[in-house]
Amino acid sequence: MAGRGRFITLEGGEGAGKSTLARRLAEELTRRGIEVDVTREPGGTDNAEAIRELLVTGDTRRWSALSETLLFHAARVDHLENRIRPALERGVWVICDRFADSTRAYQGAAGKLERARLDALHEAVLGEFEPDLTLILDLDPQIGLERARERGEAVTRFEKHDLAFHRALREGFLEIAREEPERCAVIDAARDAETIAAEALAIIDRRLKG
Amino acid sequence: MAGRGRFITLEGGEGAGKSTLARRLAEELTRRGIEVDVTREPGGTDNAEAIRELLVTGDTRRWSALSETLLFHAARVDHLENRIRPALERGVWVICDRFADSTRAYQGAAGKLERARLDALHEAVLGEFEPDLTLILDLDPQIGLERARERGEAVTRFEKHDLAFHRALREGFLEIAREEPERCAVIDAARDAETIAAEALAIIDRRLKG
Repeated sequence: MAGRGRFITLEGGEGAGKSTLARRLAEELTRRGIEVDVTREPGGTDNAEAIRELLVTGDTRRWSALSETLLFHAARVDHLENRIRPALERGVWVICDRFADSTRAYQGAAGKLERARLDALHEAVLGEFEPDLTLILDLDPQIGLERARERGEAVTRFEKHDLAFHRALREGFLEIAREEPERCAVIDAARDAETIAAEALAIIDRRLKG
Repeated sequence: MAGRGRFITLEGGEGAGKSTLARRLAEELTRRGIEVDVTREPGGTDNAEAIRELLVTGDTRRWSALSETLLFHAARVDHLENRIRPALERGVWVICDRFADSTRAYQGAAGKLERARLDALHEAVLGEFEPDLTLILDLDPQIGLERARERGEAVTRFEKHDLAFHRALREGFLEIAREEPERCAVIDAARDAETIAAEALAIIDRRLKG
């Protein structure tokens, strides 16, 4: 067998093109003979989807940043234990639309939960576990929110936040990339989907060789 | 005004008589002119009750001890921020049927989540906040489960666990009482409800004077 699979996470604000990129990467990797599981957070298992429902519905102020962080981590643990880890152990590559960096950016940078608390929770929940590669799709939030609206899907609690929130969010993701350059790569998401996918694949080839 | 209210938590296994005691204590304190709010965990606010639904329904193995701990804390933060703290600040005494010690006993002692993780999560979520008094109703779990069944209410996921789980749970609560004797008092819950309430009131009078 091919050994342990690779865990690739896609991060970024609303409308940055994460789910489109996930599909394109999965198609290309599958074409190369790699087994791929595409999933998302919050969600990815029945239990985690039930928690997702609590997180994405209702008023923007429904939950405090601390409650939100705990709910995201609860969903994440279920997803990790029951889907992500078992897949990686079978040699499957997992592409996940959002993971723990979203908690740091949404509840931390934009939601104002103190860094010390966020880090303590991250450590208690995930320990040393981290993605092999994180692709951060960077985009002006005005463009991203416009795109998200154009999709015409149900608007989540997170999209309802004001522009200042989404700007802090973008800055939060860029800060993660600066702090962890070996794990993260920033991709300019203002370009077309094909160009973005080509750049993402080049990064995967360079960083996840062997 | 009377200053900050008091926060009294009732802990113990299934069928130990916590909700009966909560009612009796509230009646007596109200008779003395104290404003009392009786609440419970998980729950106590609409958001926390929505999380409760995820926690009490389904198979015993639905959630791992870590996911469970995170869900309980998420519900607890909402309860604390939106009901318990505001009441205490208004001078109201809050009697809560279960609080953070249940997490330590259920997910820790009985659920086998490591102490270091439990403590780190407790610290990140609650910081220095703790009850003014915790009454632990101690009872042989065979008697408690029998009583819980006789109540004829819907059986929760927790009652479905085996006797070894409930024995570890009892031991977990007794260990908390040994570690924190100034905050906790153990009450023999094998006796009748009136005797238990009288002992609880005597403890309240002794410990929460002034």
